[in-house]
Amino acid sequence: MKIYKNPTQSQWAEIAERPSIDNTILLKNVGKILSDVKKGGDRAVRKYSKKFDGISSKKIKIGEKEIKKGIADVSDELKHAIKVAAENIRVFHSPQMESSPRIETIKGVECWRKSVGIERVGIYIPGGSAPLFSTVLMLGIPAQIAGCKHVILCTPPSKDGKVHPAILYAASLVGISEIYACGGAQAIASMAYGTESIKKVDKIFGPGNQYVTAAKQLVQLEGTAIDMPAGPSEVCVLADQTSNPAFLAADLLSQAEHGPDSQVLLVTTSLKILNDTIEQLNIQVKSLPRNQIAQKSLENSRAVLLENMDDALSLVNAYAAEHLIIASDDAEHIADKVVNAGSVFLGNLTPESAGDYASGTNHTLPTNGHARAYSGVSVDSFVRKITFQKITHEGIRLLGPTIIEMAQAEQLDAHANAVKIRLNQ
Amino acid sequence: MKIYKNPTQSQWAEIAERPSIDNTILLKNVGKILSDVKKGGDRAVRKYSKKFDGISSKKIKIGEKEIKKGIADVSDELKHAIKVAAENIRVFHSPQMESSPRIETIKGVECWRKSVGIERVGIYIPGGSAPLFSTVLMLGIPAQIAGCKHVILCTPPSKDGKVHPAILYAASLVGISEIYACGGAQAIASMAYGTESIKKVDKIFGPGNQYVTAAKQLVQLEGTAIDMPAGPSEVCVLADQTSNPAFLAADLLSQAEHGPDSQVLLVTTSLKILNDTIEQLNIQVKSLPRNQIAQKSLENSRAVLLENMDDALSLVNAYAAEHLIIASDDAEHIADKVVNAGSVFLGNLTPESAGDYASGTNHTLPTNGHARAYSGVSVDSFVRKITFQKITHEGIRLLGPTIIEMAQAEQLDAHANAVKIRLNQ
Repeated sequence: MKIYKNPTQSQWAEIAERPSIDNTILLKNVGKILSDVKKGGDRAVRKYSKKFDGISSKKIKIGEKEIKKGIADVSDELKHAIKVAAENIRVFHSPQMESSPRIETIKGVECWRKSVGIERVGIYIPGGSAPLFSTVLMLGIPAQIAGCKHVILCTPPSKDGKVHPAILYAASLVGISEIYACGGAQAIASMAYGTESIKKVDKIFGPGNQYVTAAKQLVQLEGTAIDMPAGPSEVCVLADQTSNPAFLAADLLSQAEHGPDSQVLLVTTSLKILNDTIEQLNIQVKSLPRNQIAQKSLENSRAVLLENMDDALSLVNAYAAEHLIIASDDAEHIADKVVNAGSVFLGNLTPESAGDYASGTNHTLPTNGHARAYSGVSVDSFVRKITFQKITHEGIRLLGPTIIEMAQAEQLDAHANAVKIRLNQ
Repeated sequence: MKIYKNPTQSQWAEIAERPSIDNTILLKNVGKILSDVKKGGDRAVRKYSKKFDGISSKKIKIGEKEIKKGIADVSDELKHAIKVAAENIRVFHSPQMESSPRIETIKGVECWRKSVGIERVGIYIPGGSAPLFSTVLMLGIPAQIAGCKHVILCTPPSKDGKVHPAILYAASLVGISEIYACGGAQAIASMAYGTESIKKVDKIFGPGNQYVTAAKQLVQLEGTAIDMPAGPSEVCVLADQTSNPAFLAADLLSQAEHGPDSQVLLVTTSLKILNDTIEQLNIQVKSLPRNQIAQKSLENSRAVLLENMDDALSLVNAYAAEHLIIASDDAEHIADKVVNAGSVFLGNLTPESAGDYASGTNHTLPTNGHARAYSGVSVDSFVRKITFQKITHEGIRLLGPTIIEMAQAEQLDAHANAVKIRLNQ
């Protein structure tokens, strides 16, 4: 861990910076995959699934029988846990589906918004050794609440073409029955362009490796919407003298185990807490099954000591973390001044892993400083808020002159005419 | 106008299609401008302002004096109209700034969202002969309601370096005092990277020509958020036997005058209305100052006759128009089935130009079929909804086992440890 003790303000930018990656070559390689799938459809998908993932199975769509069998393979304990998490996520996300009232802006002019679910949504779930079934809940539940009509899921299968049972179970729980065994950039291409098996979607959600991320960026340029730009996962822990170093270390490690590129930042106003946390980190990391990944990630991580909470908050806001843990008895008060963050965890008893799985908030969040401009996924991400307006005779009489004056000043006479013709009828 | 009478469903895709543009060369040229501004700052901006817009003035920031003088130059009539429009926009947008309640998902686990304005926002306003001061209101008012701390505005000046008075007045009305006289891709680059004069922003809003649009796409790839992908403006008018052909023609022309690439689509269930509207179009277009632009745009436009309203609605939803006018006495009922549109205008007395200027709804809307996945600009576009959560002793005791079970199934043991260490304390 790189330690900064009372860095000057000029060093903050360096501390808040993420590693920049030149992805020119990556984008070019992924562009080739996209155009191949655009032209070749399922055949191209199969080619890349074989090449990259060693999948020999020709079947892309997962059948009903396989889904049933997969569901049966999930233990009762895990089923119960997934159900509890799903219920909390549902409770938190349901009120996000709003119907806004009609507003009479002036007499005879009524305006309103209606939230309408995006018709066709595609969800990408990474596969491999650690199947992210929790992400199926985090994306599938808001899609369901939003009333999206067609929700499909793509995920890379194991080499024999099978999808992890927990993913199948989570999908069934959120009403997703169209599941495709394909991963990587070719899966993103399939959802963006459509193939013989997979129908084109309007928006693509979900995390993934650098190929998936690059593919999402490229299809966005061509008109398919995506949830948000992605980068390595990250946590910032803000600690004061009331923090618990063992908890801090556990929270930092829960981020560090994600991958060697995970971002971990500790900001504290207490030198004792800083030292004790590093000691705890060294103890706890040893017993982790993924300790090599966590070690590597910690090497790139930073611990910063600052003189007071105002400075600490300035740095935290400059960093704009995906996850921000305010590990303090005074967390709520401190949180009032947080302006840039994806999701904030308050107090010493609120670990990030609660929000990753089961508290109810969404875990698909802006990384890489994007919290400065992006929100995490919510029901908002799955709807369009279509505006409506209705004007009466009185309304057009009252508002007409304003429209005509402005349209003429913008030299758009036909805009003015559309009002004049109604006033003169 | 291209006329389709009772086209088969297989023709609908063709009707709903937008012209596809290969912008590979454009993106390359714009990429060069962006990297020049990134390296050269103000000097590069000045170089391109001179090259593309013939601006010799070296001043980029508009001074207080010039703003005051500009404001004084706006007529009282236009000032009044802008004020009326601003008030309606404010009335409609204000309730969009929500504070969501705290939700106890299970005992001891509280979750909530807080809307926080994006800190630094950049607004681009096209200049030239028709100064889009209305867009200053449409972007500046929601930014103000959202509580964005720094809002800056870039707009191309006239050759002598002056910004149009109506733009200066509208900006002052919505609290924008940082105004920069620069346009095109170099303006987008300035806001995305920052220069000596212009501080980097987090998100860029506003319409523009193909250079501006390409620049916004490219800076988005590098991490600056943008409002939405842009394309030529478009209207779809849905008419039945209760429509007024003279009004329909006026509405179609108010879109057609925007530019030769504007998209105009008439969908109707009445052959008489179709014929009468075309007759009206031919009469009304002649008297327009911008009749050459409108004529050209009409040539690329389509009128479609369909047998019944259900078919008409299917086509309308497939098209996913930026503006949809439902010119029928039965508009509200028909509108229930609209799922893809940016903004919808109901009834024979609600022209698109009302929403373009003054009814209160926003006029920055998804074009090019993007209404399938994107909403128009609203206060939502200027905030992040940050999630917060707080867990008590009881909460972690109740929720802990669920988190541990799920984390272990995803093979993320440090995630489980962060809970275990709190349960075991």
